[in-house]
Amino acid sequence: MTPEEFRRHGHAAVDWVASYLERLEQFPVVARTAPGDVRATLPPAAPEAGEPFETILHDVERLILPGITHWQSPNFFAYFPANTSPPAILGDLVSAGLGVQGMLWATSPACTELETHVLDWLADALALPEAFTSRGPGGGVIQDTASSATLCALLAARERALGGSATDGGGRQTLTAYASTQAHSSVEKAVGIAGLGRRQLRGIALDPAFAMRPDALEAAIVADKAEGWTPGFVAATIGTTSSTAIDPVRAIGAVCRRHGVWLHVDAALAGNAAICPEFRHLQDGLELADSYCVNPHKWLLTNFDLDCLYVADRAALVRALSILPEYLRNRATEAGAVIDYRDWQVPLGRRFRALKLWFVMRSYGLEGLRRHIRHHVALARAFAGWVEADPRFEVVAPVPLNLVCFRLRGDDAPNERLLNRLNDSGALHLTHTRLDGRYVLRLAIGGTYTTRRHVAAAWDRIRAEAGSAG
Amino acid sequence: MTPEEFRRHGHAAVDWVASYLERLEQFPVVARTAPGDVRATLPPAAPEAGEPFETILHDVERLILPGITHWQSPNFFAYFPANTSPPAILGDLVSAGLGVQGMLWATSPACTELETHVLDWLADALALPEAFTSRGPGGGVIQDTASSATLCALLAARERALGGSATDGGGRQTLTAYASTQAHSSVEKAVGIAGLGRRQLRGIALDPAFAMRPDALEAAIVADKAEGWTPGFVAATIGTTSSTAIDPVRAIGAVCRRHGVWLHVDAALAGNAAICPEFRHLQDGLELADSYCVNPHKWLLTNFDLDCLYVADRAALVRALSILPEYLRNRATEAGAVIDYRDWQVPLGRRFRALKLWFVMRSYGLEGLRRHIRHHVALARAFAGWVEADPRFEVVAPVPLNLVCFRLRGDDAPNERLLNRLNDSGALHLTHTRLDGRYVLRLAIGGTYTTRRHVAAAWDRIRAEAGSAG
Repeated sequence: MTPEEFRRHGHAAVDWVASYLERLEQFPVVARTAPGDVRATLPPAAPEAGEPFETILHDVERLILPGITHWQSPNFFAYFPANTSPPAILGDLVSAGLGVQGMLWATSPACTELETHVLDWLADALALPEAFTSRGPGGGVIQDTASSATLCALLAARERALGGSATDGGGRQTLTAYASTQAHSSVEKAVGIAGLGRRQLRGIALDPAFAMRPDALEAAIVADKAEGWTPGFVAATIGTTSSTAIDPVRAIGAVCRRHGVWLHVDAALAGNAAICPEFRHLQDGLELADSYCVNPHKWLLTNFDLDCLYVADRAALVRALSILPEYLRNRATEAGAVIDYRDWQVPLGRRFRALKLWFVMRSYGLEGLRRHIRHHVALARAFAGWVEADPRFEVVAPVPLNLVCFRLRGDDAPNERLLNRLNDSGALHLTHTRLDGRYVLRLAIGGTYTTRRHVAAAWDRIRAEAGSAG
Repeated sequence: MTPEEFRRHGHAAVDWVASYLERLEQFPVVARTAPGDVRATLPPAAPEAGEPFETILHDVERLILPGITHWQSPNFFAYFPANTSPPAILGDLVSAGLGVQGMLWATSPACTELETHVLDWLADALALPEAFTSRGPGGGVIQDTASSATLCALLAARERALGGSATDGGGRQTLTAYASTQAHSSVEKAVGIAGLGRRQLRGIALDPAFAMRPDALEAAIVADKAEGWTPGFVAATIGTTSSTAIDPVRAIGAVCRRHGVWLHVDAALAGNAAICPEFRHLQDGLELADSYCVNPHKWLLTNFDLDCLYVADRAALVRALSILPEYLRNRATEAGAVIDYRDWQVPLGRRFRALKLWFVMRSYGLEGLRRHIRHHVALARAFAGWVEADPRFEVVAPVPLNLVCFRLRGDDAPNERLLNRLNDSGALHLTHTRLDGRYVLRLAIGGTYTTRRHVAAAWDRIRAEAGSAG
């Protein structure tokens, strides 16, 4: 494909994406395919000869689209959102076109420097502590997901606690980790990957709002110390996946400081809200945290993947992840004047992801991003009000931001049937969780194109289906 | 940005990428920026109000491009290539436009099923053992990089060796891992991440061609068993980063089978060559491997990131990485009829990367891909011949594929000066390594747009600079 053909096919691909965005509401939100349906349409082997681009693009429409669950639909209220925006898509396009690999500063200085710079922009826009910016000993780095950010933070914490050796002289790992029982599954996954043994992750009890109890945390740390463990890592969550519960970071941070334990704060979704001053109180106490992550790909109009991990002191992270073979040595690295982000992450190679965040922050401006967040929070509050006003339903958790956890009063079974009926309808997509052992529906509002009309229609549909779900 | 504006700006972004591809040879290959140069051009804070897309795209040209090292330049011979192609760029564009998140089959069935299908296509095109396809108990999954593939393979190996617990009753990790001293740094990094203690990675001695000695491997395993360790993971490399050395997989596999040790084969670059029957002998013995990875983003016209990890039996991998919280439960997963790729990787979320590999395999067809590989191998052989014919130079490692390791005879210092002078010239980009303790230049040929003219010009430049490097 020559550059001239790329122009022509590229315009067609852009037009197809534009047309997809225009038609988002026409598709059933949840794909109506059975396992194997998509594969059954595909030939058993790759073609020997090349095929025209038009055929391939047509097959996206014909074969792929029916198997898509439409995360960008304004009627997608499931999980946490993974929203995109037109500028982010184009930022990704430019990044793919440049095709650079930013493992070292030297392998494309702009890739590293734009990342450092835009992550400072974001830290300042979210009013994060100065220590998380590159102006001091800390700084930010793009990770794929909060799962990887949590893993990196755990590895840095282990490095700091155990001084370069994961294990003691006898090959024994003594580190213990702590998170509320509502923390994301990635904490347990990270602990397993790091080889701590999953028993070395302590699940800390909750308060009535599903947030971590600092007193229970401290009791667990004290007990572990007494038994010869090395308490080394606490993961607090601002906005849990189940219910956007807000762990009290200031009180947890005080416990961590008293016991010399690394505090990681996972604010994957909720941290984005701190772009609005009125939501910053939710993460009060961040100056006590050693690391923090927020996912613009969840709620800041930047397409997946783009998680931002910030550390207050990058030394432990770099020590935990740095290995410098001869074939990566270069003058800039040896001079110590640059950041090599390969030492801040699990993989070696990395894409130029800062471009898309740069495109987004400049295209919308901070005002546009604040408007976006406030709009969704207002919709969630409106929805929670409608639910509360209907005696058949209850709201079962606080609604600090854009997620409403609710249920039909009474047994679980009607709720489960209600959820399945709603998802089968094609009109919207919700998911569920369990809180206090009860089956609960979650409605998360974060779609780029979601307006009051869509939320109102969702509520109408929920009420209607509830009538027949008993 | 409305869909209509997206069309307009998207066409402009495509045109910019096309123009970039047309101008690739005009730029100095290595960015001529000093640390901080790029950041100095950027405003200290994100704008309050949105900016026009034209301004942003213009700033890519004006502010970013001078800080780019041009990985897509036909004169880029450094590291291993990270090549893109127009169809891959457009596959990524469509993926960004769809904006789906394929963590579960249920979150977009086409994302999972196309991945399974295209990875079977690739396995068959590379003539991989049947066990690596989805037709049996194994299968393939897309990872970001070979580093992550190695980590996942190690975790699966640990799971199989130690039966679900990384540590013994006393919290001790007894697993030992093995790789040649020329294995990629990611093996050491993975071992550190998994908390084995880096002393638990044994570096195995080399034969004269820089490949792992199976007898030395077996001796190390036997000695470790005698000392109470649990030998559990061998990483063999087909095509080391330093010199594309080829570890003898069949002999290593026999050792692994005798001792019940997991064999992972890292063929990140070289595995791509197996698309040509004449290069398949390099990975003879793969049926003895438990896992295998190859990176189409290195040499198969697919832009970074796209590593394919194959396992012969997916059970250990899934057991090592699966955690199922309530909020991810769904009917398809419970029924057991589907693959949920979140259980095959470290992160939870995942992009729709199979699209770009599908676009590439269909656009070029298997013949086009074979032509591409053969073209580069022929160029490398020609280059090696020119080097050998010049008495000032020596080729210092076998050239099985597309990498030539060479040096000026004699001391290291003139070689280091030669490398720096070449890279400073802007005309091309090479990197170096050390083999047998000596400083060695590496010329890797894998650029999408690299032709005989570029390799000949590189050799002319090398000879000319060598004349003044003494």
